[in-house]
Amino acid sequence: MKTSIGRLISKLHRKSQVYINYALNDYNITSAEYAFLLCLFKKDGKTQEELSSYLDIDKSATARAIKSLEEKGYVIKMKDDIDKRFNRIHLTDLAKLHQEDIRNRIFHWSEFLMEDVTEEDAAVLFRVLENMAGKIDKTNLKSLGDNT
Amino acid sequence: MKTSIGRLISKLHRKSQVYINYALNDYNITSAEYAFLLCLFKKDGKTQEELSSYLDIDKSATARAIKSLEEKGYVIKMKDDIDKRFNRIHLTDLAKLHQEDIRNRIFHWSEFLMEDVTEEDAAVLFRVLENMAGKIDKTNLKSLGDNT
Repeated sequence: MKTSIGRLISKLHRKSQVYINYALNDYNITSAEYAFLLCLFKKDGKTQEELSSYLDIDKSATARAIKSLEEKGYVIKMKDDIDKRFNRIHLTDLAKLHQEDIRNRIFHWSEFLMEDVTEEDAAVLFRVLENMAGKIDKTNLKSLGDNT
Repeated sequence: MKTSIGRLISKLHRKSQVYINYALNDYNITSAEYAFLLCLFKKDGKTQEELSSYLDIDKSATARAIKSLEEKGYVIKMKDDIDKRFNRIHLTDLAKLHQEDIRNRIFHWSEFLMEDVTEEDAAVLFRVLENMAGKIDKTNLKSLGDNT
């Protein structure tokens, strides 16, 4: 059977997770947690709901990851200045101190994956995958799932 | 910042999970479980260790998924005929009954992703991603992680 794009993406993703677990082992950050940190590196102070929605990770897994990152000293929950019902997740000084190295270690994976890819192939690869991602964003996945 | 291949794969994977959760909702099968079923559809009777190693999913997550699939009636653990220390995971009649539909629903995602991609672009896409997957298989990810 020919490999499907779903299987390939799934395989590449799983191997990424294995790499990330090794690469961030020094920081005691797991593949279930790093995406939340990357999000906060981009914009600190997101709510848990925003992180969950942006990453398409369900609320309970998000809560587990944030709790774990809190226990490890990388994030802290603080009440929103205006609406006290909301907790905002902020990076600690520890997270900020290691931000650049953590990002570099994660980015190293992409560099490794792309190092043998020609510029021409890379252009096709990014165009096709970005189109896929864009199409997904415009599609109601629930209705796509219902129609199977 | 230009999107990295790691980010793109991660995004496409997360959206795949969202789709799978919708598409397999009728069967009460989650995105954390379907990969194990797909593996068993290919070759029934694998051990839990084989599934964990093949899918690069850690032992505790594998144990949780298999337990859940067992409770839902899709798999059953049976002692190995020769070496009684090993449990082999077998598909139940229920899983076999729905095997084709479950596979079709999962494959529908790949069809959706590829439907607008030209043959020429698809050829580049598969060649590049399969080369990446092959390179990963030949690389010690632990040492790659250590060297960051």
